[in-house]
Amino acid sequence: MGSFAGHALPGGFFLFVGLWWSIKSSLWHLTRRNKSIGSTRLPSRAVQRRLEIIESSVIVFFSVVGIIAEQFAANGPKLQLFDYTENHWKDMMNWQHSTMYLFFGLAAAVSLIVHTTAAAPLPLDRLMLGLAFFNEGFLFFYHLHGRTTLDVTVHQLLLYAIFGQALVAFLEVFHRGNAILELIRSALTILQGSWFWQIGFIMYPPNGPQWDLNDHSSVMFVTVCFSWHLMFALLFTGLVYSAVGCVVRARLRRTPPMEMGLLSNQEREIWSQRMKSYEKYMPGFILMFSYHSLLDSVTKEKCIGNNSREMKGTF
Amino acid sequence: MGSFAGHALPGGFFLFVGLWWSIKSSLWHLTRRNKSIGSTRLPSRAVQRRLEIIESSVIVFFSVVGIIAEQFAANGPKLQLFDYTENHWKDMMNWQHSTMYLFFGLAAAVSLIVHTTAAAPLPLDRLMLGLAFFNEGFLFFYHLHGRTTLDVTVHQLLLYAIFGQALVAFLEVFHRGNAILELIRSALTILQGSWFWQIGFIMYPPNGPQWDLNDHSSVMFVTVCFSWHLMFALLFTGLVYSAVGCVVRARLRRTPPMEMGLLSNQEREIWSQRMKSYEKYMPGFILMFSYHSLLDSVTKEKCIGNNSREMKGTF
Amino acid sequence: MGSFAGHALPGGFFLFVGLWWSIKSSLWHLTRRNKSIGSTRLPSRAVQRRLEIIESSVIVFFSVVGIIAEQFAANGPKLQLFDYTENHWKDMMNWQHSTMYLFFGLAAAVSLIVHTTAAAPLPLDRLMLGLAFFNEGFLFFYHLHGRTTLDVTVHQLLLYAIFGQALVAFLEVFHRGNAILELIRSALTILQGSWFWQIGFIMYPPNGPQWDLNDHSSVMFVTVCFSWHLMFALLFTGLVYSAVGCVVRARLRRTPPMEMGLLSNQEREIWSQRMKSYEKYMPGFILMFSYHSLLDSVTKEKCIGNNSREMKGTF
Amino acid sequence: MGSFAGHALPGGFFLFVGLWWSIKSSLWHLTRRNKSIGSTRLPSRAVQRRLEIIESSVIVFFSVVGIIAEQFAANGPKLQLFDYTENHWKDMMNWQHSTMYLFFGLAAAVSLIVHTTAAAPLPLDRLMLGLAFFNEGFLFFYHLHGRTTLDVTVHQLLLYAIFGQALVAFLEVFHRGNAILELIRSALTILQGSWFWQIGFIMYPPNGPQWDLNDHSSVMFVTVCFSWHLMFALLFTGLVYSAVGCVVRARLRRTPPMEMGLLSNQEREIWSQRMKSYEKYMPGFILMFSYHSLLDSVTKEKCIGNNSREMKGTF
Repeated sequence: MGSFAGHALPGGFFLFVGLWWSIKSSLWHLTRRNKSIGSTRLPSRAVQRRLEIIESSVIVFFSVVGIIAEQFAANGPKLQLFDYTENHWKDMMNWQHSTMYLFFGLAAAVSLIVHTTAAAPLPLDRLMLGLAFFNEGFLFFYHLHGRTTLDVTVHQLLLYAIFGQALVAFLEVFHRGNAILELIRSALTILQGSWFWQIGFIMYPPNGPQWDLNDHSSVMFVTVCFSWHLMFALLFTGLVYSAVGCVVRARLRRTPPMEMGLLSNQEREIWSQRMKSYEKYMPGFILMFSYHSLLDSVTKEKCIGNNSREMKGTF
Repeated sequence: MGSFAGHALPGGFFLFVGLWWSIKSSLWHLTRRNKSIGSTRLPSRAVQRRLEIIESSVIVFFSVVGIIAEQFAANGPKLQLFDYTENHWKDMMNWQHSTMYLFFGLAAAVSLIVHTTAAAPLPLDRLMLGLAFFNEGFLFFYHLHGRTTLDVTVHQLLLYAIFGQALVAFLEVFHRGNAILELIRSALTILQGSWFWQIGFIMYPPNGPQWDLNDHSSVMFVTVCFSWHLMFALLFTGLVYSAVGCVVRARLRRTPPMEMGLLSNQEREIWSQRMKSYEKYMPGFILMFSYHSLLDSVTKEKCIGNNSREMKGTF
Repeated sequence: MGSFAGHALPGGFFLFVGLWWSIKSSLWHLTRRNKSIGSTRLPSRAVQRRLEIIESSVIVFFSVVGIIAEQFAANGPKLQLFDYTENHWKDMMNWQHSTMYLFFGLAAAVSLIVHTTAAAPLPLDRLMLGLAFFNEGFLFFYHLHGRTTLDVTVHQLLLYAIFGQALVAFLEVFHRGNAILELIRSALTILQGSWFWQIGFIMYPPNGPQWDLNDHSSVMFVTVCFSWHLMFALLFTGLVYSAVGCVVRARLRRTPPMEMGLLSNQEREIWSQRMKSYEKYMPGFILMFSYHSLLDSVTKEKCIGNNSREMKGTF
Repeated sequence: MGSFAGHALPGGFFLFVGLWWSIKSSLWHLTRRNKSIGSTRLPSRAVQRRLEIIESSVIVFFSVVGIIAEQFAANGPKLQLFDYTENHWKDMMNWQHSTMYLFFGLAAAVSLIVHTTAAAPLPLDRLMLGLAFFNEGFLFFYHLHGRTTLDVTVHQLLLYAIFGQALVAFLEVFHRGNAILELIRSALTILQGSWFWQIGFIMYPPNGPQWDLNDHSSVMFVTVCFSWHLMFALLFTGLVYSAVGCVVRARLRRTPPMEMGLLSNQEREIWSQRMKSYEKYMPGFILMFSYHSLLDSVTKEKCIGNNSREMKGTF
């Protein structure tokens, strides 16, 4: 994939997935915490399942697209493994990437089965996700043979993020629904995405001069830079969490708790209608959420301060 | 063991054990889940114990056969350790393999003691199994000295499967009866078996040209190939699980739940009779199961769809 | 930071923090254990929260000071990253140290948010602390390139302490409030602090002759010396624990248990007043505690013997 | 310590401790399981505590003796660290060994405090034991610089046993009283002891020819041999467990359960008297137990078979 676009594409994908996971985790965790106050105006278990199914379908779709692109693009191997004329294995890079996509596709397919039927035990989706990340790290690990110092270093740093994701996903098999683990996984996914972009900028600078790939001060800068990416990912996830928190609490405040019992059936219907309309416009859904949270945090800056007092009892 | 047969033999054995474990785990897990519907038509705890005893006896038998074969075959050391004429240790390969078999034999013997008497704590069988796998990996690890790059790589990849099995078995000491862990152990056993075959085909191709053992593209292909074996093992285990699920549910549907209370004693007898006949023909048992599941999945293709609705309540 | 002061400064800071954490952990654990006897004369949950807030504020303050000092001191990079005249990265050492401080500052800021508002889940403070230690170890690890054997060894030994702290902090995410883990974390922090001083004395001896940096017996001495530091840290933490234990029990003995019910409200007020005065004089607080415990252990040497009998029932 | 005796001495000590731990663990575990049948004739909690105190005292005593011997024997450093005449560190080997003994002594001293007073939390003894083993492994690890291949290999294999013990002891901090973990720790201690003897025989053969320290077949034999030691340690621990089991059940069978209620007070007194006499003659105690179990297993060979049926209910 030795090109800027080849690193920016997966980077963008992981950034997007990380953002989506951080929104989803925050949303489920915060609505679960607020259930005692007014669960009827919050997304129900059925909505949660439907979102999981949509998410898995999207990932399956993109994996298939990715595999086809890797195989049949200009220089792809076109499903041929061995080059009999030159007597060696052909386009191993593309096959490696196809295999990575295949594992992510399999993980999403299993998640689809888990959430549509009752045929498989629930923690299987996290196990397969962990395996997909482990496999990605495993292939990257045997990918680094015979490169320059800086190239090896930036890809080794990527392995921290990838194996971290695998580890957290495996822990989730045993501690499912733990908010901390889910948010850490989101943050590490964002880290992987942003570091892919950074690798692209370091190895194939789109404009500006080439880096000196053997300068020791470059290696030192790169490790420091990775720390900054980690910090950015953590802060960003925290920001998303608090933004979603503001939206959820704002929604709860709008209807006074007294009328809740009376309106519950009707309300639930309205909410589920609204959720369905969200689902129709998946990309718009995320934008809308970001917009809402932005709006909320600007106009009601002190909502954390006000609500946190009210919330304390539910801890 | 430097031969194709020397890798195909243990490979075949592990493939068989992996298949058997995946059937067993699926069967216990699915009958436990369906207990509330009609436990009388499903294998009882006594049957489970009897199967464990048979399994352990078979493994003890094969370990003894393996040790004898390693020691007394054409080029074996015939229980002699040191060659005083040439002043060095004799046939260390054979002694290593004998030691591996010895550990698996010991693990099976302990399992036999655990399941026939009450003299030992229950999780001891998994601990010994974990130790047997750990010992196998440990001996392989000190086995790789001074070989070609490709040879070292394929055996290193084998270590991922072996140490994975050891880790999962150790986890089972603390999380006994976890369906996910048992299925993962089965999948890793199948992976080990199929990778043994792959090593045989790579290092000692039975027909066709030799591989170029120092070509870097070969090393890259081998890592990708290992990923495919892992995926195959996972998919195969999943297939076995769902096939067993179809058989179990088909069996439950045949008798209407109303008559269950009336027939229970008689039914139980019939079932236990049938299980005993299964035990008599162990190899046939597995074939029959595979056949049943194949038949079921062909003739009642939608059994997952139909039953999954009914099953949801038991979750 | 290649100087004695550059190692003595963080060393002193970690020694101080380790001492403070060991006092705090001992205090909370011992008051929790003695709650059944007379909880009213012991610090309440509100006091605990207030101390956490003060601690976090102090750490945030020192991190900001540290970052400013690293950036704007005599040879600092003054927020410039790249030296365009010499075409390489500038003062990477200072940037590394700034990043370490930044992570500790972030961890303390998150702890501040966790303990002042209800916006974030509670275990987040330990997770961020673990990440800050992990990041410190990570940057030190990529810091060791191209130095003498002894220099690499002493910094590798430091990594044992740092990664140990990170591991314990991550374990605390799942086992919060475990006294053993908190005390081990304190002991490892003291170890890190004292070992920083030792590194200063080895690499930059302030007076006396230089060490022979390539003598093998020096490397052997250094590993033995690290063991002694570990033992010192453990013993010191144990001493602090037993001293705090003496103070807590002496305080409980002063008022007879009969009057406890009558005095509880007034007592609580007095205690909380006293705690507030402690908080005003943070550094004095620690000195006072040390003094109290010293006084107690000298004048009532047998307090452990006497009290331990009384305590047994509460186990 | 480069001599046969220098390896046989610690080896013998660890063999003895491993034997004692396996007896102790088996005894507590089996009496706890049989409590429902007739707890009055079995050692009580007070006896358990007293034995722990005796054990810790013995270990403290031997550590002090070991340190004094290392320091003041013929070639010891006599508490001098630095040789100013030759300007290098003096007798680092002896200092390393003294430090190892010091850590074991500290662990035993902490165990003494934990079991005599209520001043320290209970799991602290296992934590300190784990640290003592970790420290032993840590010092051995930095001990291997610049030796022959075979010498490095045999000491690396020792590290498996030592770090295994440390890991199990750390796990016991969280899973205290787990029979499996305690027996594994005993087995690894026996392994460490027997491997120390093996190292002595390999590196300094007391009679017979020297080994060829650079022959590759020697390295292969040594790894296989380590597996056999592990198997021997496991089998031996299993044997001790079943022997103790026979003794405990034989003792329970002697008095018919009916009279138990009537005799309980008197019986308890007799038993505690007997236990006290055991304690007086510590070494004799172990011999007696071994003798009893031998006698029992010879004269009543089928005691496992007979009793296991009766025991099943208590599982």
